[in-house]
Amino acid sequence: MPGVGKKSAERITYHLLRLHKNEAAKLSDAIRALKENVRYCSVCYNLTEEDVCEICSSPRRDQSVLCIVEQPRDLIALEDAGVYNGLYHVLLGRISPLEQIGPEQLTIDALVQRIREGSFEEVVLATNPTVEGDGTALHIMSLLERSNVNFTRPARGITSGNLIELSNRDILHDAMTCRQSAKHLEKE
Amino acid sequence: MPGVGKKSAERITYHLLRLHKNEAAKLSDAIRALKENVRYCSVCYNLTEEDVCEICSSPRRDQSVLCIVEQPRDLIALEDAGVYNGLYHVLLGRISPLEQIGPEQLTIDALVQRIREGSFEEVVLATNPTVEGDGTALHIMSLLERSNVNFTRPARGITSGNLIELSNRDILHDAMTCRQSAKHLEKE
Repeated sequence: MPGVGKKSAERITYHLLRLHKNEAAKLSDAIRALKENVRYCSVCYNLTEEDVCEICSSPRRDQSVLCIVEQPRDLIALEDAGVYNGLYHVLLGRISPLEQIGPEQLTIDALVQRIREGSFEEVVLATNPTVEGDGTALHIMSLLERSNVNFTRPARGITSGNLIELSNRDILHDAMTCRQSAKHLEKE
Repeated sequence: MPGVGKKSAERITYHLLRLHKNEAAKLSDAIRALKENVRYCSVCYNLTEEDVCEICSSPRRDQSVLCIVEQPRDLIALEDAGVYNGLYHVLLGRISPLEQIGPEQLTIDALVQRIREGSFEEVVLATNPTVEGDGTALHIMSLLERSNVNFTRPARGITSGNLIELSNRDILHDAMTCRQSAKHLEKE
C-alpha cells in the first residue's frame, strides 16, 4: 500500500490483532463495501456510490460550464477550495506516450460525445500545467475544433505570496504575457 | 555585509592580504567608483551610471507601456526573463505600515507626475503579489483614479509544472476566477 512501509505494516497488524472482534469485522465490511459500492459516475467519471454522482445530479451547479480534470483528486482539490460551481468531466489520466497511455484509455470519447450533445457555453481545460497535461488539453481541443465551444484554462502566472525576483523565466513569461486587468485587485 | 558571516569575513581578509598591491588597489578603486558613479535614473529610478538609464533612453522600448516594480532587482528579474519590452518605474520599496514606510518615502510622487504628463496606454502594477505589494498597487491606483490609465497586473494563478491537487486554496482561487482563453495553449 502506498506510504505504508514494513515498519508501519507491522504496527498496523499488531493494532488489528488488538482490536475487538466486532471492530475488525466493521473494518473488513467497510473494505468490501468500498469495492462493491464505489464506482465511476456514468456521466462525469467522478467516484460515487450512485449511478450519477452528487455534482452531476445537483440542480445548484451551473450547467453551462464544464471543467475537465485528470483525476478525481483534482476534482476534490477544486471542490475543497470552493472556487468553482459548474460541472466536471474526469479523464481518469492524461495522454502519456512515455507510459504508453493513449487517448483511447481515457474517457475522451465520452467527453467529446458529452460536449457535442450538450449545450456548454464554456469548457475549462483544467488538466495539470505540465507537458503531458497541456498535450492532453490540446488533443481535446483539436477533436472539438469544429464545435463552437469556448475553451478556457485556469490562469497561469505568479502565485500569491511569491516574489517576482525569485520567480523563474517560465513563471514571469506566463505572468507578463497574460496580464490581467487590475480591477480584480480592488474587488479583493 | 549580507550573507558574509564571521568565518567568511576572515577568509576574505586573508585573501585580500595575499593579493598583489595592484589588485587590491583595483578592488579599492572599484568600490569607490561604485559609490561615485552608480546613481538612480532621473526618470525611472533604476540603477545606472548615466543620468538617464539605458532602458529609458532606448528607442527600441515600447513607450506606451509602463511597468511599476518595487526594487531594481525585480526589474532585473523581468529583463533577464526577456518577457517585457516597455518602460519601468522603480518605487524603491513598498508601503509597509509595520516598517513605518509610507508613500512619501517611495518614488510615488514622481510616478504620478510621470503618468499624468505622459501618454501611457497601459500601466502594469508589478509590485510583488504580497499583502504589502497589493496594498501599494491599490494606493497608486487610487491616486490616479481620475486619469484614464488602463491598469493591469501580472497574471496570477497556478505556475507551470505544478499540480492542481497540490495547489492551495489561494492559488486555485486565482486560477479559476481569472480563467484565460485556451488559445494561448495553441500558440505555445
